[in-house]
Amino acid sequence: MGVLVFLLALIPSGGEGSGFTMHLMRAESPGPDVGKLVPHIKETAKILYLMYILLTVLNFIFLMIGGMPLFDSACTAFGTAGTGGFGTRNDSIASFSPYIQNVCTVFMLLFGVNFSCYYLLLLRQFKSVFGDEELRWYLFFVVGSTAAITWNIRGLFPTLSETIRHSAFQVASVITTTGYATTDFDLWPSFSKAILLCLMLVGACAGSTGGGLKCGRLLLLVKSLRRNLHQVLYPSRVQVVRNNGKAVKENVIQNANAYLAAYVLIIVLSFIVISLDGFSVITNGSAVISCFNNIGPGLEAVGPTCNYGAYSTLSKLVLSADMLAGRLEILPILILFTRSAWKQN
Amino acid sequence: MGVLVFLLALIPSGGEGSGFTMHLMRAESPGPDVGKLVPHIKETAKILYLMYILLTVLNFIFLMIGGMPLFDSACTAFGTAGTGGFGTRNDSIASFSPYIQNVCTVFMLLFGVNFSCYYLLLLRQFKSVFGDEELRWYLFFVVGSTAAITWNIRGLFPTLSETIRHSAFQVASVITTTGYATTDFDLWPSFSKAILLCLMLVGACAGSTGGGLKCGRLLLLVKSLRRNLHQVLYPSRVQVVRNNGKAVKENVIQNANAYLAAYVLIIVLSFIVISLDGFSVITNGSAVISCFNNIGPGLEAVGPTCNYGAYSTLSKLVLSADMLAGRLEILPILILFTRSAWKQN
Repeated sequence: MGVLVFLLALIPSGGEGSGFTMHLMRAESPGPDVGKLVPHIKETAKILYLMYILLTVLNFIFLMIGGMPLFDSACTAFGTAGTGGFGTRNDSIASFSPYIQNVCTVFMLLFGVNFSCYYLLLLRQFKSVFGDEELRWYLFFVVGSTAAITWNIRGLFPTLSETIRHSAFQVASVITTTGYATTDFDLWPSFSKAILLCLMLVGACAGSTGGGLKCGRLLLLVKSLRRNLHQVLYPSRVQVVRNNGKAVKENVIQNANAYLAAYVLIIVLSFIVISLDGFSVITNGSAVISCFNNIGPGLEAVGPTCNYGAYSTLSKLVLSADMLAGRLEILPILILFTRSAWKQN
Repeated sequence: MGVLVFLLALIPSGGEGSGFTMHLMRAESPGPDVGKLVPHIKETAKILYLMYILLTVLNFIFLMIGGMPLFDSACTAFGTAGTGGFGTRNDSIASFSPYIQNVCTVFMLLFGVNFSCYYLLLLRQFKSVFGDEELRWYLFFVVGSTAAITWNIRGLFPTLSETIRHSAFQVASVITTTGYATTDFDLWPSFSKAILLCLMLVGACAGSTGGGLKCGRLLLLVKSLRRNLHQVLYPSRVQVVRNNGKAVKENVIQNANAYLAAYVLIIVLSFIVISLDGFSVITNGSAVISCFNNIGPGLEAVGPTCNYGAYSTLSKLVLSADMLAGRLEILPILILFTRSAWKQN
């Protein structure tokens, strides 16, 4: 989703531009699931945008029903839809009612789902939606993390339902890379913080509005790792990585691996540079992870109740570059910096 | 180096066992540089072991010259040779003379070099040794990190030479995954700690006694990433990854990528499990990175002046498993856990 799908909806189809955009879209997308839903790429983009608008409007209506003011409802709906997480109040969503917090949780999670799933739902292909491996992993991460954190922070809140509400909200906010908060999770125990930090890396589904490594890419990496292990045991057997039963092309797997390498390299280099400012290791580490995956809050000095204001100009530039690179799926940005991209063909 | 080379030196060549060991050695080795130095694999193993013993004896003699007691010299030489880092005193190498500390720095760095380089030196192939890309990267990391840390910790020690000595020692200790210390680097500024933490991930050269990701593998990952970027620009051009001018086989690149995926996954999972003990995020993170890369000291509660005693039994088991997996280059250990490894062919 995002800039490229928007471009696709505008650029005249069949022209040189659309081929290039499709090409870029493939580079930007984690692979298996971004394809043409319908024969014409322009139609696909329009369908995706319609669903995006529909969900945003639904979110807005549900927030209004909960008594949220018009302006706040619109901003929160937009912030949830784009997984931007720009709250209208200083304490993000913390001072709104439990109902509104739950609405946000649900819609954050909905916007973290691959939009192709919604299209398939419209076509009544329920089996292929609920059998989708990426969706299953995504739900597994959400439910598993919420359960683990709820157990870990038991006693911090008066009732179980409040504990579940806060833990589910924070999990949804972090895995979808939205960045809203209803409580200061920097005060939670290490285990919960560790889970949230790792969910920042995981990210939402491919083809959603969320950032991060993406569940689909993680799935591909694990499968390609398993294939590699089997290849050591049976060197002469041809082994294919499958996603939802379909063979995944080798270049998609290669791209996922290249993505991981670029991802780790950029995190490590950014971390070293912003460490020059002298903040704690965990502040710097979580700042890079949070910016690179487009989440927002990190831990310690950049926790949910703090901001990035104390960083130097250099660090702010590095973190801004990370935000851009993370949002545009790294590779297109790296391609801009290769010499051959600037040579005339 | 290590267990497998030792096995190779013992197992009768040509038998079924040696084929399997060679197979395992390839799985264990980071790729480009581990090959047969001479036609017979058994001879190769013997040459490697001779050089290992020779360097250890040299190290021992240099330590004795510095006035280190016989027992300490022997233990320190063995601890340096295997990049084990098991010191004879509670403060590791801190209370020994500057001369001894410098001897340790030099020998730690020497044991972090690919042993094939020494063999090539014996054969007077100086050009291929000093042109070796991995060696160059390794030296670049060492010199660059030492310079950056020396600049960052200026003022912490009375003289420049002492500052350089401590910074070079800690860099050598961490990049070769030895783990000796001459000072508590946990008290250094964030920038120095960030560099040391990243060097823990980098590790020594392939075919050395050191652990970590290995410079050679890092080099391969960067080159394979660059190849991938070029492939997006020129999809129909055949592009080969080269190391020292020679084409690298695709399965070696695939293995390096699989290694990175396994590496990241294991770090993340171990980090989550040991976070249950409630120590700080940076203690847990550095503990996993330090154990997995076979270094020893981490940061904060597992820093150079502390130990892992406070962790629970579960965490200790996880960290022990990480040490084993890291030492044996992950993939052979993961293969043990695949179902098909236990099926009769």
